Amino acid sequence: MINVGIIGATGYAGNELVRLLTGHKEVRIIWYGSRSYADARYADIYRNLFEITDEFCRGDHMEELISEADVIFTATPQGFLAGVLTEEMLGKTKIIDLSADFRIKNVNVYEKWYKIEHKSPQFIEEAVYGLCEVNREHIKGARLIANPGCYTTCSILTAYPLVKEGLIDPDTLIIDAKSGTSGAGRGAKLANLFCEVNENIKAYGVTNHRHTPEIEEQLGYAAGKEIVLNFTPHLVPMNRGILVTEYASLKKKPDGSLPSYEELKAVYDKYYKNETFVRVLEKDVCPETKWVEGSNYVDVNFMIDERTGRVVMMGALDNLVKGAAGQAVQNMNLLFGLDETEGLRLVPIFP
Amino acid sequence: MINVGIIGATGYAGNELVRLLTGHKEVRIIWYGSRSYADARYADIYRNLFEITDEFCRGDHMEELISEADVIFTATPQGFLAGVLTEEMLGKTKIIDLSADFRIKNVNVYEKWYKIEHKSPQFIEEAVYGLCEVNREHIKGARLIANPGCYTTCSILTAYPLVKEGLIDPDTLIIDAKSGTSGAGRGAKLANLFCEVNENIKAYGVTNHRHTPEIEEQLGYAAGKEIVLNFTPHLVPMNRGILVTEYASLKKKPDGSLPSYEELKAVYDKYYKNETFVRVLEKDVCPETKWVEGSNYVDVNFMIDERTGRVVMMGALDNLVKGAAGQAVQNMNLLFGLDETEGLRLVPIFP
Amino acid sequence: MINVGIIGATGYAGNELVRLLTGHKEVRIIWYGSRSYADARYADIYRNLFEITDEFCRGDHMEELISEADVIFTATPQGFLAGVLTEEMLGKTKIIDLSADFRIKNVNVYEKWYKIEHKSPQFIEEAVYGLCEVNREHIKGARLIANPGCYTTCSILTAYPLVKEGLIDPDTLIIDAKSGTSGAGRGAKLANLFCEVNENIKAYGVTNHRHTPEIEEQLGYAAGKEIVLNFTPHLVPMNRGILVTEYASLKKKPDGSLPSYEELKAVYDKYYKNETFVRVLEKDVCPETKWVEGSNYVDVNFMIDERTGRVVMMGALDNLVKGAAGQAVQNMNLLFGLDETEGLRLVPIFP
Amino acid sequence: MINVGIIGATGYAGNELVRLLTGHKEVRIIWYGSRSYADARYADIYRNLFEITDEFCRGDHMEELISEADVIFTATPQGFLAGVLTEEMLGKTKIIDLSADFRIKNVNVYEKWYKIEHKSPQFIEEAVYGLCEVNREHIKGARLIANPGCYTTCSILTAYPLVKEGLIDPDTLIIDAKSGTSGAGRGAKLANLFCEVNENIKAYGVTNHRHTPEIEEQLGYAAGKEIVLNFTPHLVPMNRGILVTEYASLKKKPDGSLPSYEELKAVYDKYYKNETFVRVLEKDVCPETKWVEGSNYVDVNFMIDERTGRVVMMGALDNLVKGAAGQAVQNMNLLFGLDETEGLRLVPIFP
Repeated sequence: MINVGIIGATGYAGNELVRLLTGHKEVRIIWYGSRSYADARYADIYRNLFEITDEFCRGDHMEELISEADVIFTATPQGFLAGVLTEEMLGKTKIIDLSADFRIKNVNVYEKWYKIEHKSPQFIEEAVYGLCEVNREHIKGARLIANPGCYTTCSILTAYPLVKEGLIDPDTLIIDAKSGTSGAGRGAKLANLFCEVNENIKAYGVTNHRHTPEIEEQLGYAAGKEIVLNFTPHLVPMNRGILVTEYASLKKKPDGSLPSYEELKAVYDKYYKNETFVRVLEKDVCPETKWVEGSNYVDVNFMIDERTGRVVMMGALDNLVKGAAGQAVQNMNLLFGLDETEGLRLVPIFP
Repeated sequence: MINVGIIGATGYAGNELVRLLTGHKEVRIIWYGSRSYADARYADIYRNLFEITDEFCRGDHMEELISEADVIFTATPQGFLAGVLTEEMLGKTKIIDLSADFRIKNVNVYEKWYKIEHKSPQFIEEAVYGLCEVNREHIKGARLIANPGCYTTCSILTAYPLVKEGLIDPDTLIIDAKSGTSGAGRGAKLANLFCEVNENIKAYGVTNHRHTPEIEEQLGYAAGKEIVLNFTPHLVPMNRGILVTEYASLKKKPDGSLPSYEELKAVYDKYYKNETFVRVLEKDVCPETKWVEGSNYVDVNFMIDERTGRVVMMGALDNLVKGAAGQAVQNMNLLFGLDETEGLRLVPIFP
Repeated sequence: MINVGIIGATGYAGNELVRLLTGHKEVRIIWYGSRSYADARYADIYRNLFEITDEFCRGDHMEELISEADVIFTATPQGFLAGVLTEEMLGKTKIIDLSADFRIKNVNVYEKWYKIEHKSPQFIEEAVYGLCEVNREHIKGARLIANPGCYTTCSILTAYPLVKEGLIDPDTLIIDAKSGTSGAGRGAKLANLFCEVNENIKAYGVTNHRHTPEIEEQLGYAAGKEIVLNFTPHLVPMNRGILVTEYASLKKKPDGSLPSYEELKAVYDKYYKNETFVRVLEKDVCPETKWVEGSNYVDVNFMIDERTGRVVMMGALDNLVKGAAGQAVQNMNLLFGLDETEGLRLVPIFP
Repeated sequence: MINVGIIGATGYAGNELVRLLTGHKEVRIIWYGSRSYADARYADIYRNLFEITDEFCRGDHMEELISEADVIFTATPQGFLAGVLTEEMLGKTKIIDLSADFRIKNVNVYEKWYKIEHKSPQFIEEAVYGLCEVNREHIKGARLIANPGCYTTCSILTAYPLVKEGLIDPDTLIIDAKSGTSGAGRGAKLANLFCEVNENIKAYGVTNHRHTPEIEEQLGYAAGKEIVLNFTPHLVPMNRGILVTEYASLKKKPDGSLPSYEELKAVYDKYYKNETFVRVLEKDVCPETKWVEGSNYVDVNFMIDERTGRVVMMGALDNLVKGAAGQAVQNMNLLFGLDETEGLRLVPIFP
């Protein structure tokens, strides 16, 4: 059995880790870390776990945790892990970080967008960006995984094949994203009250959302050059789910024509046909968040607009699963040489 | 492996059966029955199953189904099973009926409340009412299980210990129930449109809802006498979940005092302490549907009102799991001598 | 023009007062009082008012307010008005209090249920309970109006005719109430976050909700004797609306029979036929909150259960209108001799 | 008093017309037309109108209607009005058409996108496109108004000033739109059931939604040339509201720099400062649908992305008010020389 510790177990992503790991047959959760609820019984904070776990939340006792855990998930605010990470920790345990601390290679970019100082930039180079479908082989041997953001996972996987194969002009890429409210976390903020979110939709973080440079960096690797793009998130009155709608100009073929549906479909299939968790939908079927809810799937598809010469790419995932805890477990499975789908063979729940 | 057939696989309860059985390690679904969608690919109707099953829906071919299936789930409209059931079928396969056809022992009561003629009353006597926590031993050897209704399961389990032990006056029992909208099915009816249900709550079936006699019959067995009660369902703008709030006068003790919290708690524990799927919450904690969503749990609790001498009992479950498909799988596990929790050890999904 | 001041203008009820009074042709709002947002522009807090009002919020300057306002609405926390009220204030201005401070005549009952000391009990006797349909004539000459609570208004008006005419046994009365989330106010509390409320329903305040004694007192006046009853509120995932479902045993007629539908309907009509804002629905039609949303209407109806001898009474209103701001405006209209419906002739908004 | 007839009074837009016109002091509704509910009492179909109107729905009696009505609103399916319109009708009454029949000047474009034959193309030229803020003077003398679509109104008004003044490259314009579900109408379709829409978001009509050519035509007039653009609508789990997020490349100034916030703001103010119903929000404030719900306002704003050289424009309105019935009433006010805001001075309802 793998001994797992969770720091930040009482956030929504933390609770989702508990849900998934409870159903994972190779794992034992030995640490429910939570500063806010230290010494409270976990099932009193998250009553879905009532009579399933009797464990109590633990405050900061990093030494003890490191010595007991084979892997630690940090579902913590930005800056936490960078503030405590040491070489000793990485020598004793593996770390899968659900925060953004080690996602961005250029520390200046990180500090500019997150507006905090990075306390341990020496580990950035080593950290592996844990987008399993893209970085699988690098993940396997890593000590430190930077688990991708929810918007980011959806945005990248949706466009990746066409960017990678050079079929679209990456400078024309516009990502319009829509998220359920659990992405905003469990903090008691006025803007996230039921009456403020329900029956409402709005954009936020327009032109300056923190996931932008992460998307640009990763798609830049695929494109083989630096790119800038527009990323606009929206808050949608639902608990879970992210939908992205992405627009880009198709590169014309030498004869001046646009690539065909079949040509683009073949490219998507090239990258995703053997991927369990990426489902390329059939022609003309648009992804919907409901069809992936509670599962680790990403549903993607695209449509060609002959009139404007653009392709509209769409992707849907559950922000707490493939967008956070599920992908983290997928990374753990890779780290420990387990079946990549262990604990993640969950059929989406409908309705 | 147990070969399972589902008739009515394209209703919401049918899809939930598919979800649960897909994760059940002793089972293979061999038949996705659906009149409405005969010959359609199942994953085209329920896209959560895309790339998980490639099977097609089957119309009515009862002979073939009976010969192949070890057990058949009928998630069908009232009257369907009663119209086709034969001794030959029961000789070849087991049947778990999610409709009301064989739940009520008195055929006159059935015909009066459901306003249809019962076509095979000769099987009513044999059918076992599949409320696992109450009828476990009878279920094990049965050929025909009448799987309880969603409102019914919640209403009965919430009050059962106090009725059974004679601590409340059953003639004072009033059940006020609230249900998510999936209980209304997937039929395209104006009353179930998003804009009609959302931001709205209403009672319906007041004084005449069909689940009333089923609750009365089962609680009558517990009480040892016939009882009549008020049952009022309400439609709530959420997908899943049933909450019942039940009111009854407590019987006074010989000294004229009311029973204490501890005394009532002991009675609940007597019946449910060893039940995996019934969770008696701690003092003063009210059940909420969200904490059981997607799982087979029922959360119950009670509060004593010293001022009025009544007890307020509360119960919450997921109408598609413990209220339908989950309980049906639990019954199947009992029928086939499997671990009762196989395929049902799902942590509730939150939020 | 009547000069109106609002203390507590930045709560949901305060904003609803602003909405209604902005459309009231005899009124000018001269004071947007708010401690939390003192000196902020009102339209920055409530952007529905953008370009409609340019006024700024005012902190506590009671002297100035009293000298300028013809009437003050206090949409404030419990205890605020009782803490500041003076004879001088009542000599200079009228006060319509949306809090509970002056609703309950017995100060001991108030202090027990609200768990705060009442600072000005000397004004309780004078205060008029502002349930317009019941106390219209007393309201007209009052200086201090105790505007009823949202649950209370709905609960009382739904049962009032049958209690007043002695057709039900008031000791059997059970009120099961369901409320939208705006009733919980705009405070940033975890329990009111979107993800905690959405897709969820729960009871709360079971056996001890503060509106209980208010309902008991007012229905006790109608019954001509003290009564105790069960009142159980529930939180529903919608913004606005309260639905109550009330159960009581009908008194039998001398011949042992139950009263007929027509007899009960005649009683409802006796009290409400001439009431603009109470709509007695037609036979078998159940009230729904959506049909009154945004308006000052209460929809009520009842159904007789011959089997149990009980009547099920139902009522629906918008908790922010007839349950708070709308009723307060109705009271103001009565106080100033205006048409009772001025500013309140709003057609419910659907969907 | 103006005598108003409504054909299609039992759709959501029809009911909204009834709500608004009931509060309009210069108007009397004399005709509630509805094929589906002919001879039913209107308040039985829309119970928000209970005790407000006792009128019955009328089937097709065009002769009678024309002779009695001063103006007819047609809230009917595509093709209806084109199928019945005659010169005689236009001689006797004014018509405000909420369908798309007369919105598009090129009949071939109409027939291609709507896939129906246009039965009275001879009236297309005369019809005035009823976008009040753009076509006010033409509307005043018209006999036939083509009331704009909901997506269209929001999409055009959001981008209009920058397109009109040539500050953006219209060929780069991408419109990502999100709509509440009332836009889908009151038809009983599976896709619009509560359980299918709730907790879900999806794109639909990708690359081929019918509102596309209408937006292109109108913005083309502003641009002074034909344009093609991408328009992608999404279905959001809320009753009312449309939000559009629009992306376009800013034209650089002669010195190669981008225009400043102040320069773009001045352009928006030039067109909207005196418009009652268009509110240009303050810097950095994003429109939200909730802040305009139930009202005739459109809230618009924009943000410049210096990194990509694009401007992100946003707009929000209530699809049933400014997107349908409210704009229709605004057109009626213009047609009859009334105050343009009569019946429309409704404060948005929050929450």
